[in-house]
Amino acid sequence: MTEERGRGCGHQLRSLDSTGQGQESCWRSLRQWIHLKWLLVFSLLLVCGLLLQVFRNLQESQEYLPKSNFPPPFALKLLSQEELRKLFNYDGLWLFPQSQCECEKQSGNYIFRESYNKSELEAVKIRRKAEFEHFRRREGLPHPPPMLAQPNIPFGYPIHGVEVMPLHTILIPGLKFDGTEAPLYKVTLKALLGTLNTLADTPDSEVLGRGQKQLTILTPSQNRLNFILQHVTYTSTVYQSGAVDIVSIEFGSSVAKFPVNINQPTIPKLFDPGPERELRNLVTIATKTFLRPHKLQILLKSIRKYYPDVTVIVADDSEKPEKIDDIYVEHYIMPFGKGWFAGRNLAVSQVSTKYVLWVDDDFLFTKTTKIEALVDVLEKTELDVVGGSVSGNVFQFKLLMEQGEDGDCIHKRSGYFHALEGFPSCVVTSGVVNFFLAHTESLQRVGFDPRLQRVAHTEFFIDGLGSLHVGSCSNVVVNHQPRTQSSDSDQATLEKAYSRFRTNTQEQVKFKLSLHYFKNHLQCYTQK
Amino acid sequence: MTEERGRGCGHQLRSLDSTGQGQESCWRSLRQWIHLKWLLVFSLLLVCGLLLQVFRNLQESQEYLPKSNFPPPFALKLLSQEELRKLFNYDGLWLFPQSQCECEKQSGNYIFRESYNKSELEAVKIRRKAEFEHFRRREGLPHPPPMLAQPNIPFGYPIHGVEVMPLHTILIPGLKFDGTEAPLYKVTLKALLGTLNTLADTPDSEVLGRGQKQLTILTPSQNRLNFILQHVTYTSTVYQSGAVDIVSIEFGSSVAKFPVNINQPTIPKLFDPGPERELRNLVTIATKTFLRPHKLQILLKSIRKYYPDVTVIVADDSEKPEKIDDIYVEHYIMPFGKGWFAGRNLAVSQVSTKYVLWVDDDFLFTKTTKIEALVDVLEKTELDVVGGSVSGNVFQFKLLMEQGEDGDCIHKRSGYFHALEGFPSCVVTSGVVNFFLAHTESLQRVGFDPRLQRVAHTEFFIDGLGSLHVGSCSNVVVNHQPRTQSSDSDQATLEKAYSRFRTNTQEQVKFKLSLHYFKNHLQCYTQK
Repeated sequence: MTEERGRGCGHQLRSLDSTGQGQESCWRSLRQWIHLKWLLVFSLLLVCGLLLQVFRNLQESQEYLPKSNFPPPFALKLLSQEELRKLFNYDGLWLFPQSQCECEKQSGNYIFRESYNKSELEAVKIRRKAEFEHFRRREGLPHPPPMLAQPNIPFGYPIHGVEVMPLHTILIPGLKFDGTEAPLYKVTLKALLGTLNTLADTPDSEVLGRGQKQLTILTPSQNRLNFILQHVTYTSTVYQSGAVDIVSIEFGSSVAKFPVNINQPTIPKLFDPGPERELRNLVTIATKTFLRPHKLQILLKSIRKYYPDVTVIVADDSEKPEKIDDIYVEHYIMPFGKGWFAGRNLAVSQVSTKYVLWVDDDFLFTKTTKIEALVDVLEKTELDVVGGSVSGNVFQFKLLMEQGEDGDCIHKRSGYFHALEGFPSCVVTSGVVNFFLAHTESLQRVGFDPRLQRVAHTEFFIDGLGSLHVGSCSNVVVNHQPRTQSSDSDQATLEKAYSRFRTNTQEQVKFKLSLHYFKNHLQCYTQK
Repeated sequence: MTEERGRGCGHQLRSLDSTGQGQESCWRSLRQWIHLKWLLVFSLLLVCGLLLQVFRNLQESQEYLPKSNFPPPFALKLLSQEELRKLFNYDGLWLFPQSQCECEKQSGNYIFRESYNKSELEAVKIRRKAEFEHFRRREGLPHPPPMLAQPNIPFGYPIHGVEVMPLHTILIPGLKFDGTEAPLYKVTLKALLGTLNTLADTPDSEVLGRGQKQLTILTPSQNRLNFILQHVTYTSTVYQSGAVDIVSIEFGSSVAKFPVNINQPTIPKLFDPGPERELRNLVTIATKTFLRPHKLQILLKSIRKYYPDVTVIVADDSEKPEKIDDIYVEHYIMPFGKGWFAGRNLAVSQVSTKYVLWVDDDFLFTKTTKIEALVDVLEKTELDVVGGSVSGNVFQFKLLMEQGEDGDCIHKRSGYFHALEGFPSCVVTSGVVNFFLAHTESLQRVGFDPRLQRVAHTEFFIDGLGSLHVGSCSNVVVNHQPRTQSSDSDQATLEKAYSRFRTNTQEQVKFKLSLHYFKNHLQCYTQK
C-alpha cells in the first residue's frame, strides 16, 4: 500500500504541476502513514501481550466456577451433637474423645470412690494423684502433642521408624533438599539427645559441627548438599531407652522436624522345646489349692490319665498341707490363707516352660481336654493367652475403656471382638474362663496381684489391659468336679471352712472396689 | 533524519532535472529506509527480550559461582573406612551398623554356641531360629522400613504422636492443603486398619465414603477443602493394640503418608502408701535361703534392730526348713534345691508393696543401711532399680549390645554411664550388686528365671536389658556376714553342703552359656 501510495505520490508528481510543494506534502503524509502503521502494529502487539498476562493472572488467582452441577457454596459448619452421637458407637458406648466419662447408675455397676468412707476420701485422692503422677512420669506421659509437618517444605525426611539403640549410631534415611536455587546453601540440622555427623568426605569449611548437636552444611552446590544429607548420621549420647529425640533441619525460613526413637529392644527370653517337642518341655500345669486336698487329688488323677509326665505346680496355703505323692508335682507351701492371687502368682513364678496351663483345683480332665490344641493356637498366632471351656462355659468378655479426669471408666461386655483367623472355634476377646494356656512370660509380666486374697477373676484381665492379647476356644473342654458336699466327714469339714473363705463378704467387695479406684486409677465400672 | 532525507529528495527534485525517475528512486530508497528503521527497532527489542529471558533462565537453572573463596568442586566421596573407625566409639566398641558383630577371643569372653556338642548344634540352631521367629512376630518385628516424606508436598499432616485406643475414634490433627489452584479439588484419604469420616457438615456430593476405609473430598473451594480436612476423624476397627496404621492423603500425583498408632495404654498398678507413709506400707524385704538358717537368723535380727515391723518374705528350698519365729516374716517352703532364681522369683511374686528390697540371707544390716534413702531415689526419679553397697562394693557394670545375624553380642564393662541428676552419690548403669531396692512391678515384669538354679547374677540384668532402668548409690551400705566357717558342728555341716551347691561346676557353666545362646539369642559375650 505504501508503495502504491508512493507511486501514487510519484504519479501525482508527474501528472500535477511541477511545484515541489504538492509532491512534498504527499510524501510527508506517506511518511507519517508508514510511521503510523508501524506504531499501530507495535501497539497491537503490546496490547495483546498485556491481555494475555491479565488472562493468565485471572486464571491463576481467582476462583473459576466451571459449568458443573455443584450447588452454591454452603456455610462452613460442623455436624450437630445429635448427628455426632449417631456415629462412633461400639457396643452402645460412644467412643469419641471427651473430657469426662460416665457410668450409668445401675445395679451391677460401680462408682469406685463410693467404697471409701467420706472422711478418708480426700486424703486418698491426694495420695492417688501423687502415685498416678509418678506412674505417668515413669511411662513418659503425657506424650507431647503430635508433631505436624507443614505444606510445601523443600525437604525430604523420615517421619516414622527411625530407631537407634542408646549410645549407638545410625544413618538417617531420606534426607534431601529440593528447593529454589540459591548462590549458597546453608542447611542446619539440630538434635537434642544426640550428636550429628555425615559420612561424606568434605573440606572443613563445607560441614561445620561434626560430632556436635548442631551440624551446618555450607555449599554452593545443591548436588553436594544432597550427597552430604544422604549420609547424615545420628549418635545417641544419653543412656535413656524409651526417649524420643526431635531432630530439625532448616534452610532459610523452611524448617522440618522428625522424631528419632532411642530404644534398647527387649531381649528375647526363648524356651527350647527340645528335639522331640514333648509336651512336658512345652507346658507346665499350674494350680492353687486351699483346704481341698481331696479335690486336688481327683484333679491330679484325671490329669495323669492323659498326661503322665507333665509337671504340675501346686501352690498350697492350706492350714495343714497334705503331702502329694507324684514325682512330677512341685508342691509349694505358703503361709496359711495367704490368698488366691498370691498363690496364682507363686505358681506361675516357678514355671520354666514356654507355656503354662492354668487349672482350678476342682477341675476334671477328660478326653476333650486337649492341651495340644491350645498349644497349637498360641504357636501359630500372636496371642498371649487362650482360654478353653469349663463344662461348656467359655465366659468370654470384652473390656472397653473410656478415659476421664478422675480416672477411667471400664465397661465389661460379654462376648468377643471378632473371630480368630485360622481357628474356627476361637475368637479374640479381653477375658476368659479360669482354664487357659498362656505364654509364661506374659503371665509373669502382668502378674496376679497378691492383694487379692479371696474371690477374684476379672481383676487379672483388667490388670492385663494394654498388655495381654486374649483369645478363647470353645473346643477344648475341661469338666468341673461336682459341687455336692463330700460324704467323708473330714472332707466335708474342710469344704465348709473353704466356703467360708470363698464367700464374697461385704468387706471384701469394698476392698476390691477401693483397689480398682486406687491401684488401677479407675472411676467406675459397668457391665452388661 | 527521514524528513531531511525527504526534504533532500524534494530538494534534489528542485535542484535536478525534471525527470520523475530520479525522484522516484529517491523516494523508494527513503520508504525502504523507513521500513528498515522500524524493522531494526523491532528486531532490537526482540533480541533484547530474548536475551533477558535467557539471562533469567541462566540465573534460575544453572549454577552460578559467586565471587567467593570456595575451592573448586571436590569429587563426591565418603570418609574412608579408617576415618570412619575413629568415629562412633564407646568404651572401645564401634557402635555403628554392621551385619555382623564380633567378640574377641580372650579369657573371660565366651562364644556361646561352643557350649553345645557339635552333634546337637545343628538341631539346636533350627529350634532356636523357630522360637526366635515366633518371638519376633509377637513383638511386631522386624519393624517396617522408615516412612519417608517427599519434598514439596502441598499437604500439612501429622508425622508423629497420633494415637487411638482400639475401637475408639480421634480427630486427626494438622491436615491441610496448600497447593496450586484448581477448578475442582479431589482429595482422597485412605486407611487400612480403621475408617475415616469428617465432622464437617457437607452435602452428600462433597464428601464420599464417610465411615469407610477411603474418604474422598470433592469441592471447588480450597477453603471448604481445608475446613473438611481440619475435622477428619479416624476410627479404629481392628482390636489390635500395638498395631500401626498407615493413612495416606492424595491430590493428583501428590501423596503423603503418616502413621496412626493403635494402642491400649497399660493400665496403672498403683500402691497406696497409707496416710502416714510408714515404711512397712512402702517396702517389703525379700530374700532366699538355702541350708543356712543360722545366717538367716542373724540377718533377721539385724533387720529388726532398725526396722521392727517391715514384712520380710523368705523363700526357702532347704531340705529341712527351720521355723522362723517372727510375726512379720512370711515363710515359703519350696521343693528341696529347686533353685536360686526360682526362690528369688517366688519371693518377689508375694510382695504387695510398691517397693521390694532384695537382700541375701547372709547380709547384716547396720546403721548405714538406710532403706529410706533408696526409697527417696526411686520416688524422685524414673529408675526401676537402685543398688546399694555391700561392704563398700557397688559392683556397677554396663551392658552394651551389638546386633548380629546369628545372635547379638553383649559386652559387659565395669562402671557406669553417667551421674544420676539430683543424687551426688548415685549413677546410672546396667547392673548392680545383689542389694537393691526396686519397683515390685518392674521386678515381676522382668522376672528371675527359674531355670537358673545355682550361681547366677548378671543373668538377671541381661534379661532386664531394654526393660529396666538401673541406678546405683554408694551411700547406702549393708554388711556381709563373715565367711568363716561356723564353730557349731551342725551349722558347719550345713555350710559344707551349701558350698557344694554353691560351686560353679563345669556342667553348670556350660548350661548357663547354652541358656544365653538359646534363650537370649546371644552369640557371644565380652567383659572388661
